[in-house]
Amino acid sequence: MDAPLSELLEFLRYPSISTDPAYAGSVAECAQWLYKKFLSMGLSATVHPTAGHPVVVARNAHRAGLRTVLIYGHYDVQPVDPLDLWTTPPFEPRIENEIIFARGATDNKGQILSHIQGVAEMLRREGELPVNLIFLVEGEEEIGSRNLGKFLQDNREALHCDVIAVSDTGMIGPGIPTLTYGLRGIACLEIKVTGPAMDLHSGIYGGAVANPITVLARMLATLHDENGHVAVDGFYDEVNSLEPWEKEVWAKLPMNDAELIKLTGVPELTGEAEFTALERIWSRPTAELNGIGGGYQGEGSKTVIPREAFAKLSFRLVPDQNPQTILNRVKTHFEKVAPRGVRVEITLGHSGAPYLMNPGSSHGMAARRALQTVFGSDVALIREGGAIPIVNTFREMLGAETLLLGLALPDCRAHSPNENFPVENYRAGIRLNQALLRELAL
Amino acid sequence: MDAPLSELLEFLRYPSISTDPAYAGSVAECAQWLYKKFLSMGLSATVHPTAGHPVVVARNAHRAGLRTVLIYGHYDVQPVDPLDLWTTPPFEPRIENEIIFARGATDNKGQILSHIQGVAEMLRREGELPVNLIFLVEGEEEIGSRNLGKFLQDNREALHCDVIAVSDTGMIGPGIPTLTYGLRGIACLEIKVTGPAMDLHSGIYGGAVANPITVLARMLATLHDENGHVAVDGFYDEVNSLEPWEKEVWAKLPMNDAELIKLTGVPELTGEAEFTALERIWSRPTAELNGIGGGYQGEGSKTVIPREAFAKLSFRLVPDQNPQTILNRVKTHFEKVAPRGVRVEITLGHSGAPYLMNPGSSHGMAARRALQTVFGSDVALIREGGAIPIVNTFREMLGAETLLLGLALPDCRAHSPNENFPVENYRAGIRLNQALLRELAL
Repeated sequence: MDAPLSELLEFLRYPSISTDPAYAGSVAECAQWLYKKFLSMGLSATVHPTAGHPVVVARNAHRAGLRTVLIYGHYDVQPVDPLDLWTTPPFEPRIENEIIFARGATDNKGQILSHIQGVAEMLRREGELPVNLIFLVEGEEEIGSRNLGKFLQDNREALHCDVIAVSDTGMIGPGIPTLTYGLRGIACLEIKVTGPAMDLHSGIYGGAVANPITVLARMLATLHDENGHVAVDGFYDEVNSLEPWEKEVWAKLPMNDAELIKLTGVPELTGEAEFTALERIWSRPTAELNGIGGGYQGEGSKTVIPREAFAKLSFRLVPDQNPQTILNRVKTHFEKVAPRGVRVEITLGHSGAPYLMNPGSSHGMAARRALQTVFGSDVALIREGGAIPIVNTFREMLGAETLLLGLALPDCRAHSPNENFPVENYRAGIRLNQALLRELAL
Repeated sequence: MDAPLSELLEFLRYPSISTDPAYAGSVAECAQWLYKKFLSMGLSATVHPTAGHPVVVARNAHRAGLRTVLIYGHYDVQPVDPLDLWTTPPFEPRIENEIIFARGATDNKGQILSHIQGVAEMLRREGELPVNLIFLVEGEEEIGSRNLGKFLQDNREALHCDVIAVSDTGMIGPGIPTLTYGLRGIACLEIKVTGPAMDLHSGIYGGAVANPITVLARMLATLHDENGHVAVDGFYDEVNSLEPWEKEVWAKLPMNDAELIKLTGVPELTGEAEFTALERIWSRPTAELNGIGGGYQGEGSKTVIPREAFAKLSFRLVPDQNPQTILNRVKTHFEKVAPRGVRVEITLGHSGAPYLMNPGSSHGMAARRALQTVFGSDVALIREGGAIPIVNTFREMLGAETLLLGLALPDCRAHSPNENFPVENYRAGIRLNQALLRELAL
């Protein structure tokens, strides 16, 4: 195993789960590992504490007259449950058939480290870079980059740049270079329904008191109409239609319903019938239930009317929906449908706006040339359904567009058990980094 | 502390949770404790193994010409979660202000042991009983008395009796002697909705696949109409109306809406508007959600479309609803409302029929006299909302009616955290047992 690969396995061993306070120590250790890696490459580096998890910044010695490129990524990962569905432990990376399995392999440790290794190799071979470079690697992407906005605000001058590059998205298929020019936004919300002061015997009291689970289910059932549209007043008011060229280009992409069924394992695809599956994922907003709980969940039965029930919701948003506006409309919706006999508590969570850039801009064209050079085939222009809220903050705070050069494959299982990343993609990322820096330098 | 009380605390220390296989050893030890108690009183006793937890039977030497009374109870208890809501550990009984706190204190260890102690005292004092007595104490009441039907069938001759007495119900208020002449039945069912083969990233796939939690919530929301009626076809077909005397007697009972609100802690009572709260609990069937789970339930957020979601349901039934018929109608209902894009699996659980006896029968009148003697005030005639499915089996297998002489108070928190039983009620149970045996002997 060569150094770049064994270093990736080292990086993957940190259980840097940002959402769970129990893992705060591992997140901090992972940041330290990155810091040392940057120093060893000959870059200057700093671990910046924040109100949450630290941000790691590294840079070469900047020279006047060169373009400044900021490469962004994150070293934090999603939780791992359900743990029993992992073939091997999520933080004990293994390589099987040239595929790396571990939590974070694709999202985002494998991808950001390929850029770091690209720069390391270039510096080792050529002694310098063709651009002024800034690496910005944060530890809170999976929890909405809570403290990065303030960090950018406080370090606006030091982080000034011409363009930003991020590999945290996907390739439309193996070997097909892909530029993502749009992302959905996100807005999260939690709802809790409380009824009796304690779990009640469902025989002794059933019929006279509201059941919090029943109330919650009925409230959640009002989220969609029978055609799969979100039934919150005003939800679609700011949704833009697709450009004709987008529908045309997407229809030709090597991704179809059969492939999506294979990737997800669902019996069939569902959703808004007037859009193709890709259009639904990339250009239409959604309301999803990410978690629900209440009452007895153990073996057998326990005949209680539970004290409370809760659900965790997230909304995927598209241009020009505003996360705060949407959250307020959803809150109003639930307050309106909340029945008597219970207490309903709604907590707004993290959010990020949708993103759209012009793939025909000069930076966009540079990225497309670099992709074409490394992969040797036509570049697919796509949007993605996931959120990288920080790209909007970059635009606002640093005034720069973000190039999304994804290296993940559709079956990389980001956020799922058995997350993985092909060794080949990791190596392609190293070459892509070098081609990109050269193209952007021109 | 006297012997009857310290023995109750001993009995309560066994975590005899029948639904959870992890506690099978404790259930068996608890049966052994009972067995030894019976022997020490001078009764003959046997611990009968079953396919599940054992049945303990004890008897005096039967004499020709005497009435035979069977006293039934159970030594198994409900699970204890949520454990953090208990003030002190559920299996470390404590007495505070003359109230015993422990899982099983009221349901049913305190109540059945008061009968056992009543007999022990009578035997010690008088050397014999005025009736032929059989104690039948099982370990599976909380899981639907799964194996007791077969046991009764196999031991029909040995268990032949004239009447059955059970203290596993409640008093309508402190100091008010109560005969329960009706019980609701129960039928349990679990529903599982499975979508993708694994938890999916809700950004990458959201919009194209059905969300199992959303589907489950929408299916569960069809269980009731907007007036709180169960919306399953045919659900009310076999429901009998109340007799006018029942409505009249119940309206005068010392139990009102304000008291029910205080007991449950709900903001207000809800349910079918055309019935009083007591009528809803005692004479109307219900559909309750006892538990629900799916997706991410930890701290923070995890933006997944979960692989599956489940709900645990139970239905409270009244004369003349048949549990199997109801379960089949509910299954048909869910199969009808199950949408495409997911797999829906429905598992039928335990069940028991509703019960109704005539409180004016000769045994009923004997019970009312015994209650009047011990408590010194008018006997309340009530039904209860909980199920004791075995009373129907007794009627079928042994041809005998069951007298339900409850000693639980409305705030005894059966099935809930901090379950409790007043020492006073335990002692009243001892006296009631003796008065009852004398009245039934006449």
